[in-house]
Amino acid sequence: MRVLAFSDALFAIAMTLLVVGIGIPSLADGGDESELLDKLGDLLPEFSSFFISFAVIGRYWLAHHQFFSRVRTLDSGIIALNLVYLVFVAFLPFPTGLLGNYFENPVSILLYAPTVACISFMEVVLFRHAHRHGLLTVEIPEDVYRWGSLMSLSPVLFFLVSVPVAFVSTVLAVACWFLAIPFQAVAMRWRPPGADAHLLG
Amino acid sequence: MRVLAFSDALFAIAMTLLVVGIGIPSLADGGDESELLDKLGDLLPEFSSFFISFAVIGRYWLAHHQFFSRVRTLDSGIIALNLVYLVFVAFLPFPTGLLGNYFENPVSILLYAPTVACISFMEVVLFRHAHRHGLLTVEIPEDVYRWGSLMSLSPVLFFLVSVPVAFVSTVLAVACWFLAIPFQAVAMRWRPPGADAHLLG
Amino acid sequence: MRVLAFSDALFAIAMTLLVVGIGIPSLADGGDESELLDKLGDLLPEFSSFFISFAVIGRYWLAHHQFFSRVRTLDSGIIALNLVYLVFVAFLPFPTGLLGNYFENPVSILLYAPTVACISFMEVVLFRHAHRHGLLTVEIPEDVYRWGSLMSLSPVLFFLVSVPVAFVSTVLAVACWFLAIPFQAVAMRWRPPGADAHLLG
Amino acid sequence: MRVLAFSDALFAIAMTLLVVGIGIPSLADGGDESELLDKLGDLLPEFSSFFISFAVIGRYWLAHHQFFSRVRTLDSGIIALNLVYLVFVAFLPFPTGLLGNYFENPVSILLYAPTVACISFMEVVLFRHAHRHGLLTVEIPEDVYRWGSLMSLSPVLFFLVSVPVAFVSTVLAVACWFLAIPFQAVAMRWRPPGADAHLLG
Repeated sequence: MRVLAFSDALFAIAMTLLVVGIGIPSLADGGDESELLDKLGDLLPEFSSFFISFAVIGRYWLAHHQFFSRVRTLDSGIIALNLVYLVFVAFLPFPTGLLGNYFENPVSILLYAPTVACISFMEVVLFRHAHRHGLLTVEIPEDVYRWGSLMSLSPVLFFLVSVPVAFVSTVLAVACWFLAIPFQAVAMRWRPPGADAHLLG
Repeated sequence: MRVLAFSDALFAIAMTLLVVGIGIPSLADGGDESELLDKLGDLLPEFSSFFISFAVIGRYWLAHHQFFSRVRTLDSGIIALNLVYLVFVAFLPFPTGLLGNYFENPVSILLYAPTVACISFMEVVLFRHAHRHGLLTVEIPEDVYRWGSLMSLSPVLFFLVSVPVAFVSTVLAVACWFLAIPFQAVAMRWRPPGADAHLLG
Repeated sequence: MRVLAFSDALFAIAMTLLVVGIGIPSLADGGDESELLDKLGDLLPEFSSFFISFAVIGRYWLAHHQFFSRVRTLDSGIIALNLVYLVFVAFLPFPTGLLGNYFENPVSILLYAPTVACISFMEVVLFRHAHRHGLLTVEIPEDVYRWGSLMSLSPVLFFLVSVPVAFVSTVLAVACWFLAIPFQAVAMRWRPPGADAHLLG
Repeated sequence: MRVLAFSDALFAIAMTLLVVGIGIPSLADGGDESELLDKLGDLLPEFSSFFISFAVIGRYWLAHHQFFSRVRTLDSGIIALNLVYLVFVAFLPFPTGLLGNYFENPVSILLYAPTVACISFMEVVLFRHAHRHGLLTVEIPEDVYRWGSLMSLSPVLFFLVSVPVAFVSTVLAVACWFLAIPFQAVAMRWRPPGADAHLLG
């Protein structure tokens, strides 16, 4: 399946990219331990950017992998939508790098949160397209579909709400993102009967 | 099919490449919102280059994907021609970056339009080779083949014509590229009877 | 198997990455042989970093390849653990570059040895998970499993011990790494009866 | 076949790599045509490096593709030898870039010719290993094998001879490389009876 091989290569590149940007520090004489330790300390935001970016894109790769394992056949629509999804994945290393370097600056969140929201939103669009055009391996009942879409849309909402919050406090904005977790825990209680078998199995 | 796996990896790299070049801006103290916003504003041409480049190469990837799904078997000729096609794909991020940064400079179009024309031209060459050597899954009638080739060659023409036009006005040059759309709409009316089944299905 | 295609792309990128960083030296007039030779001499640590990094990551790729050829089926646990394994592989070019440039600085080993130890440790974790959840093609007797885990854990130990040693002498620290070889030769004598058939065949 | 997917990803990266290094030129005001043309003129060696590098690595990829299509099964020896082969492929963009920038400097050829000789030599080693260990789809008669090895070794010889020649004239050195073509044309006349069926078919 060329579409998935292509997607995997793109994910792998986006996840490995940030290491290229971390230059080896140059020292005056190369022999002093505390100088090298200091220079590495200066690179800490870039290290954390790399690990965060890898984790975030890795989590989306897992979801992409899981979603496409439930897709029976691809039409040209889903291939094109997948490209739109991938452009935001390919772009993500930049806002993540910004966030790692300027965490306390709300402008970092102004770029990061909408990019992540776009990826989560495209997940919903891909799911909706596959459901509507009968591309899934198993047909999903309408109430399960509606509940599943809502579950996937909730992170989009929390990411977008975090943008104005960031201009009050960037810590509060990040807290917003984690609000999605208790929200989804509550929403799990409202799930329709068939949800376990069709979406979470 | 190693040829396609290799092509997909190359497409994925070419599409993700431009983000590497966008460096995280460095700020004086890291805390001022308007400074970071200004610096990001300076990067706007690089952002638009990235998204345009992704869209343009993505469109060629879609066509490559569609074409090779109609190829039954590969000979050494088509493998070699595919490499010539790919060298222009791999090169494309550079002229796209140039166009994003210096849109009003006709020299940008002097490099961009012929590169894109080469890719479109190689598409025709690949199609011709596959047709002549019986590599397609379905044999195409000669009149459908000739009409299809003409359809594919028309963007090449419009791209080449846009180069001298760019020295009058770069906006007019880009308008040239979009002339291909009404031209193809008219050409669709002249299509031979078998075209729908063989090329557009 | 998407997980393996994705892993392979990531390995390939991590192994090719270090060449990107080696910039073509710029000469005053471009014509003097001894000047270019001198400039290339300055790049020697970067050349050796590239070849060492390729060899080290290549050795892990071989082990990854061999391990997954014995895995019958993948569960979501092994896919997630594989991502944790890969983040250290993707990061490795940086500490390797540091080691190539500042071999005599113990801080280089302070970063390099734990990174390599993490990869070796994750190999053990992957092996343990596959064994415990019945994902291997052939069931391994408990004594063979315990002996194999110990064999794989021994490099982790030698890498971690080398860190404090590096602050006495970096040459001694590297010597520590090679102590794993005679240790494993001795441990081979203690191997349980089924080890040859199940792990080394 | 993971070994080939991995090799293809590595080839694709090595072939696309050189474009990353070509930075978009920065202009004083962005509007002057002759200034941009001048700056692009300065980048000509980097453009030619990219296209030469793509052609050279592409030619090796074709040979790699053709060779492995005749290999029936892989053993751990051929997988390890393939990694040695690939390290020189991954390194090639650097010497090619050097040659593109300092063509008249014999030191460029001192680095380029041995790198290419190593790749050609590893092709012979891979062929020999596959022949000796019965990995090929079709058994090759001993006289055809010996003649084929000689044919493959001849470029290695011409590349190595070109190094001392470069210190007299770099143009003469490059001429040396092309001597392989008439040599191989003559050697084709001496080919043993089974060569056509086993190696050239």
